Amino acid sequence: MDRRHFSRLLAGAAAGALLPRATWGGTAPRALAVNGPRLNGDLTALSAFGRNPQGGVTRLAYTEPDLQARRYVMDRMREAGLAIRIDRAGNIFGRRAGTDAAARPIVFGSHVDSVPEGGNYDGNVGVMGAVEVARTLNEGRVTTRHPLDVVVWQNEEGGTWGSNMATAARITADELALTARSGVTLRDGVTMLGGDPGRLEETRIRAGDVHGYLELHIEQGGTLHGAGIPIGVVEGIVALHQWEVTIEGFANHAGTTPMDQRRDAMLAAARFTELVNRTVRGEPGRQVGTVGRLQAYPGAPNVIPGKVVCTLELRDLDQRKVVRLYEAIRAEAARIASDTGTTFAYKPLTVHDPALCDPRVRALIGDSAAARGLATRSLPSGAGHDAQNMARVGPMGMIFIPSVDGISHSPREYSTPESITTGATVLLEAVLRMDAARFDTP
Amino acid sequence: MDRRHFSRLLAGAAAGALLPRATWGGTAPRALAVNGPRLNGDLTALSAFGRNPQGGVTRLAYTEPDLQARRYVMDRMREAGLAIRIDRAGNIFGRRAGTDAAARPIVFGSHVDSVPEGGNYDGNVGVMGAVEVARTLNEGRVTTRHPLDVVVWQNEEGGTWGSNMATAARITADELALTARSGVTLRDGVTMLGGDPGRLEETRIRAGDVHGYLELHIEQGGTLHGAGIPIGVVEGIVALHQWEVTIEGFANHAGTTPMDQRRDAMLAAARFTELVNRTVRGEPGRQVGTVGRLQAYPGAPNVIPGKVVCTLELRDLDQRKVVRLYEAIRAEAARIASDTGTTFAYKPLTVHDPALCDPRVRALIGDSAAARGLATRSLPSGAGHDAQNMARVGPMGMIFIPSVDGISHSPREYSTPESITTGATVLLEAVLRMDAARFDTP
Repeated sequence: MDRRHFSRLLAGAAAGALLPRATWGGTAPRALAVNGPRLNGDLTALSAFGRNPQGGVTRLAYTEPDLQARRYVMDRMREAGLAIRIDRAGNIFGRRAGTDAAARPIVFGSHVDSVPEGGNYDGNVGVMGAVEVARTLNEGRVTTRHPLDVVVWQNEEGGTWGSNMATAARITADELALTARSGVTLRDGVTMLGGDPGRLEETRIRAGDVHGYLELHIEQGGTLHGAGIPIGVVEGIVALHQWEVTIEGFANHAGTTPMDQRRDAMLAAARFTELVNRTVRGEPGRQVGTVGRLQAYPGAPNVIPGKVVCTLELRDLDQRKVVRLYEAIRAEAARIASDTGTTFAYKPLTVHDPALCDPRVRALIGDSAAARGLATRSLPSGAGHDAQNMARVGPMGMIFIPSVDGISHSPREYSTPESITTGATVLLEAVLRMDAARFDTP
Repeated sequence: MDRRHFSRLLAGAAAGALLPRATWGGTAPRALAVNGPRLNGDLTALSAFGRNPQGGVTRLAYTEPDLQARRYVMDRMREAGLAIRIDRAGNIFGRRAGTDAAARPIVFGSHVDSVPEGGNYDGNVGVMGAVEVARTLNEGRVTTRHPLDVVVWQNEEGGTWGSNMATAARITADELALTARSGVTLRDGVTMLGGDPGRLEETRIRAGDVHGYLELHIEQGGTLHGAGIPIGVVEGIVALHQWEVTIEGFANHAGTTPMDQRRDAMLAAARFTELVNRTVRGEPGRQVGTVGRLQAYPGAPNVIPGKVVCTLELRDLDQRKVVRLYEAIRAEAARIASDTGTTFAYKPLTVHDPALCDPRVRALIGDSAAARGLATRSLPSGAGHDAQNMARVGPMGMIFIPSVDGISHSPREYSTPESITTGATVLLEAVLRMDAARFDTP
């Protein structure tokens, strides 16, 4: 890429003269406005699928609510004139044609699956926002040079599996045999969604296959909300390492086994949980560590647990810190094992390297917000996103909007309709600026 | 009762002259021997129902394996000529007639339901041992004055529910609505077993309705096994209090929520588990305390748990100590709640007062063992048993046999065939001595 040319392009964008009029189909860019009520109405409709008693959704990948939500989005895509294709991994692509048959697509979207007892905004905002961008372009009769692909990635919450399968050099049979939280294997899940797990290679997106990738998402923390800033320009996605930790003691009768003769896996797990918290907080920085899933077996009030299965998750922008914390935790857990007569076994579940957003895309997102008079803040994403996988294949960027009180992965997760409309507006601007950008200029 | 008369009786028993020959149907008592291979063969056959991969059984009350085991026992009862009756609570009684139409029954037996991932001996030994006693009496052509009722109590492991329903002054609708570990309510479970939860009163056993109650059981601890003593004479059953503890924090994203802004229910639960251990071990005595069931919600690696539901169990022969420990734990847990931004709520699940074995029954069990040349040791039962409910309605006693290495509520729970045969032999002797005893002599 010619950095000088790109710089000139950005300078032009900042001056409001980014695009030749012809590209806009005769409509001035500033006149384009997403339909906020329509977008927020779609989000409300989408929240019906998998609704839980707390008002959020439990829409695990490969369950009926997941299928329902996907059908709802595909119906909206069809109404928007998008040509729907389900790739071999079960991801949904809705294409809006570009004017240049040789141009590579701009991909933008997110996911509709949720964690157990999740909220109505995580993923959904990025998907419906992307559909709304397509509708707004239609209504403005705006054509783009690049084809646009609105994407719905499958099983993001289980570990960004859809985007991983779509972009990874190889998905192993062991990975496909993993069981999702719904109890379905990834292999069966992909088939359920209309993919073909044995033929992933046929639709694999390779480096250079896309012009760029954009994802609109709620911030899932309290940074933007606390600062009153409407738009976040994401710097990158932190490294995330997850392990399943199995602690084995010995199940015995809780009434007849003296306290000093127990090998209580739950007591060991309690000390482990405290250890994780103490170790992660033991040094300055933004690193986080969590024991999120934990269950004691056999699980009766009158039986000393002989086994506990729990998870350990560590995240930081600096991967070396993640590794160092993990090693410190393991070393100290060995002492807990010794003290309690138990054993600890660690199985890696997920490893995501940090993924940096492309500086050119960060710049054009910032310009997009500025063009609409919106303040921005740069911030890392503590959460993983499909964008991290798309960073393998092209310039990637993410747009964050505020999460009220920073609540996420919870039925109480909330972003205001105004924030959502603002986010979709910046996504629209960013898609157009990306369309005009010549990332690949030699 | 005339204590002097009873003392004379016991003195006579020790001298081997307890029973008039007529009572024995012409057979000398010392000649009676249970059929050990048959008894142990029955136990092996019984272990097929609900067998788990570890070689024990998962035979939760109100599940198909429970029904299968009950059918197996009823078949053996019928073969032994016992007249089967299922009471309104779903308990099975197999009656062997006595010679005195006015005499009250001697009840003896145990249960066949298990904890999740339980073993093959808990309950089963007492049930098949009781059936074997009836068969041995048949083969010896021994008649008894009192009718004999071999009993299979339902849902012992869920909280001695069958014997409780059979003997309690009142079972509330709330209690019947409780959900057993199988997911079935007690009400539906009773119906499933052939009882009628709306008509429990019709078969209620009242104080004075039985001549006495005996239960053969594995010790479930290592006392007898460690000392090489074949027979335990139980002093009483400890008080047992169980609570369900619900810890509420706030579920949030594990990547984006800083460590110092979390309200992590799992961290609070970890500190609670450690607290229970520390408090119970903080003073001398045989008290025990256990967190046996624990699950974090929503239960995803990437979500800070917003809720944990766990159990607390405390046991001691001295009920005042149980209450004192509980109050100390609650007071300290309030500090954990404050430190972690969580709340703790306690719901009582089970309260069993201590139940002392009848000293006359303890004496006749000791004599029974002595008559067979077997050493005994007196010991408390740290475990709850149906016997504790039967103590409400008549003189109660329990016979323990060794558990190898004290392992209980586990697939590795084991008692030797020799121990089991010995236990059934002492049960046989004790039934005959109880038949001869005049507990109710004015």
